[in-house]
Amino acid sequence: MNGAQSLVQTLLRGGLKVCFANPGTSEMHFVGALDAHPELRCVLCLFEGGATGAADGYYRMTGDIAATLLHLAPGLGNGFANLHTARKAGSGLLTIVGEHATHHLVHESPLKGDIAALSRTIAHWTHVSPDATAVAGDGARAMAAARSCNGQLATLVLPANTAWQEAQGPTDPLPALPLIRPELARIEAAAHTLRLPGAALLVDGPTLHGALGPLAARIAKKTGARLIAPYLASRIRRGAGAVAFERLAYGVDDNAAVVKDVRHMVLVGAQRPTNFFAYPGKPSLPEAPGTAVHDLCSRSMDVAYTLGVLAECLGVTEDDPLDSLPLALPELPTGPMNLSGIGQALAHLLPENAIVVDESITMARFLMPPTQHARAHDWLHTTGGAIGFGLPNAVGAAIACPDRQVVVLTGDGSAMYTLQALWTMAREQLQVVTIVFANRGYQILRGELANVGVTEVGRNAVRMLDVDGPALDWVKLSEGHGVPASRATDVDSFVAALRAALDQAGPHLIEVVCPA
Amino acid sequence: MNGAQSLVQTLLRGGLKVCFANPGTSEMHFVGALDAHPELRCVLCLFEGGATGAADGYYRMTGDIAATLLHLAPGLGNGFANLHTARKAGSGLLTIVGEHATHHLVHESPLKGDIAALSRTIAHWTHVSPDATAVAGDGARAMAAARSCNGQLATLVLPANTAWQEAQGPTDPLPALPLIRPELARIEAAAHTLRLPGAALLVDGPTLHGALGPLAARIAKKTGARLIAPYLASRIRRGAGAVAFERLAYGVDDNAAVVKDVRHMVLVGAQRPTNFFAYPGKPSLPEAPGTAVHDLCSRSMDVAYTLGVLAECLGVTEDDPLDSLPLALPELPTGPMNLSGIGQALAHLLPENAIVVDESITMARFLMPPTQHARAHDWLHTTGGAIGFGLPNAVGAAIACPDRQVVVLTGDGSAMYTLQALWTMAREQLQVVTIVFANRGYQILRGELANVGVTEVGRNAVRMLDVDGPALDWVKLSEGHGVPASRATDVDSFVAALRAALDQAGPHLIEVVCPA
Repeated sequence: MNGAQSLVQTLLRGGLKVCFANPGTSEMHFVGALDAHPELRCVLCLFEGGATGAADGYYRMTGDIAATLLHLAPGLGNGFANLHTARKAGSGLLTIVGEHATHHLVHESPLKGDIAALSRTIAHWTHVSPDATAVAGDGARAMAAARSCNGQLATLVLPANTAWQEAQGPTDPLPALPLIRPELARIEAAAHTLRLPGAALLVDGPTLHGALGPLAARIAKKTGARLIAPYLASRIRRGAGAVAFERLAYGVDDNAAVVKDVRHMVLVGAQRPTNFFAYPGKPSLPEAPGTAVHDLCSRSMDVAYTLGVLAECLGVTEDDPLDSLPLALPELPTGPMNLSGIGQALAHLLPENAIVVDESITMARFLMPPTQHARAHDWLHTTGGAIGFGLPNAVGAAIACPDRQVVVLTGDGSAMYTLQALWTMAREQLQVVTIVFANRGYQILRGELANVGVTEVGRNAVRMLDVDGPALDWVKLSEGHGVPASRATDVDSFVAALRAALDQAGPHLIEVVCPA
Repeated sequence: MNGAQSLVQTLLRGGLKVCFANPGTSEMHFVGALDAHPELRCVLCLFEGGATGAADGYYRMTGDIAATLLHLAPGLGNGFANLHTARKAGSGLLTIVGEHATHHLVHESPLKGDIAALSRTIAHWTHVSPDATAVAGDGARAMAAARSCNGQLATLVLPANTAWQEAQGPTDPLPALPLIRPELARIEAAAHTLRLPGAALLVDGPTLHGALGPLAARIAKKTGARLIAPYLASRIRRGAGAVAFERLAYGVDDNAAVVKDVRHMVLVGAQRPTNFFAYPGKPSLPEAPGTAVHDLCSRSMDVAYTLGVLAECLGVTEDDPLDSLPLALPELPTGPMNLSGIGQALAHLLPENAIVVDESITMARFLMPPTQHARAHDWLHTTGGAIGFGLPNAVGAAIACPDRQVVVLTGDGSAMYTLQALWTMAREQLQVVTIVFANRGYQILRGELANVGVTEVGRNAVRMLDVDGPALDWVKLSEGHGVPASRATDVDSFVAALRAALDQAGPHLIEVVCPA
């Protein structure tokens, strides 16, 4: 048995099911080993950002790790942006990067680069396997690292000779690190704080979509505290039957308005709220001066334990009443193109238990409010702000949940960063409807340019903010990747296209031609 | 005057002419400052790898730096692979990366990342501007760094507040570092070595395309030494009138065969030859055991001086005879699709002084031999082996040389990594013909899998090496980006399509449907 075979068998013993791959020469022995194990599903992505983004989406929907297989430092570089977003989402992910054989690294070959140094700028855990007998153990440790702390980025660098040389055999899985718990006295103090006027409970992570959500909501109801979610959630349950979370905002003033009356922020599995960007003369933090921030339990700690003890301290039980959102579908709209109509149509047609991947940026204000009372669904945001998260994340979500409909909402500028993911949707026949809002530019930057005081826009700025001249043709781009597509120029054609896309098996793309 | 304005004016004083940009919110003041200076040409790229690859191509064709403007750590990550290739090409490049305002970095905002650490894994020079009054001086230093050592990667990280706060004004350009020269005695010794039996002069960099090429060729002729170029050249002059360089090879055995009789390798502006990849039981270096390697002058040193002194020692003058390649165009081929015919057609039709950007990988063996005696042209290779270099490099070459025809040769797998560059070709109406060899897969990896001993290929391997099911439709992909396209299914339709593409203004794409 060679090192590659020992690693693949170790990964399988550890429960790994999917590998999003973009391999090269230095990974050929690993590819050969994977070939002997079709029970590990290999999904080809035509660009590495597609692989890392898919693994992020897979973790968000399963709570377990997928692997990515990348080729040397440039491959890891191409995967960097969606690793950034995965890190900010709190997703666990095992990145395997093929490296030159150890003895080859003393020479300056074209593809030589410092993979470990690159990985350490983004991953929580990075290790270079020294030889074939170590690879299986390193694989088990990498999986444990990726599953520790509620999800981490772990990179295993695999020199080619460690894959091809003789190994001893696979290794059994190792446990993840135990989750850290807050001291009991701090939880008791937080239970007291939550009852104070102006208290708010800020939650994030699995609390936004899993069984901990109702528990947090009951705690908030019992104490009178507000229950607040971040502006960007890795995954949040919405629609009929969901817990009602308040949401922080993007704009500095809007964000401050949400929390202006908060005097005590209790953070459980959530980060301290921070504005997205800084602007001249504006604060970085949204909270009012003097607000007490109680960082009770970080996202990497034992959130379930913390909420459980909080509930116990407060006498909260499953019998406590729970408010949840009612179903309230808007009428099916009609008429000329307008984004409110698109939002209503989406809300009306979104199927039960859909997964919405949202990179719609400036369009989201038309899409999130009407869907709040749609059929129950999960909503995934670009947690890291890095562009190009949407299509790859949808691939991972669809692989994770083959029985659920995935809908991607994306701006045209955003979709262009990782459009190659469309091909993987076609190859794997994923149940994904991609809705591209073709507003012909980086509309958010027009607003941001105004924010910094530039009101008269000249040639250079126009040509850096507008994606026009030529306009992208998303129907052709989609069909070129093998995904059937249609174009909506009014609300009626959008309704017809969305109905048809949801009815058919496999992927579909709808280009929504937006008002400028 | 704010920091951004002081920086833009400093860059203009330093002679910067082009900025390949993909900006975001943190760069809006810089965009505002660029807007006031239309004499600095801003070229929008819809993905950051397009920007860094274009700057590489620009340097290869002008010998001077362009800037890229990227957005935070994920933007730099997206640009990493083509920075890797630029570094291996020896290209100089100024990367400006917008960063959060300094005071914002103490908080965990979504886009926060360690830009400087990421840059240091690839760039020669990295600096974070501390405040607005320092930005102009930092810009001048960054330009000098990018122009030093015959071209380096310099990254200037620009926190948003250093752009928006009050500055003092622009700074005058600073000189590049003086080039290091070998000791005279070592050059004299090398002149002696070159006369020995089994001597070879290995050159790279500008020697392959500029005035130093004939000088090196005369030195080789005078001494009887062989004149050898690397397998991958950042830019090499070929065709009628060009110097004849021997070329190293990709395969381990082929590479060893080229240099098997070499006893003395004299390196002038060239790296020691190294095999591309390592394989079990095969050597990393191509040279025969016992070969003496004389590393006379590295690529970052004073190559012109070194060759000049060598010539002087040897009594070589411009009056010495010089062999150059004759013009010998193949007949225009006809008939069903075959790659030799495509290569002959390319050789027949390639216009005078064309620029060929080659990422054709396994197809190159059909394209390079017949074009050796075509009309004079420059040929650009993917020096770093990172996929996705071709289309972006062509953008930069076309911006650098608006009067020359650019032809990109690319595999379909390779072109998919950075296909967004097609849009920039359309936006800027660049004279680029992109020829995509649609062989429906990573053909090189099929060979590499066989190289590592896997002969029976199963489902996982097939699905990781084949880009099929669905096939990509390059005509639609191209038209979707705004670039007119056609499909060649036999040699005649290729000839017709290439003729038409070369005749028309602006970009064009030809999909060559290859035999499997």
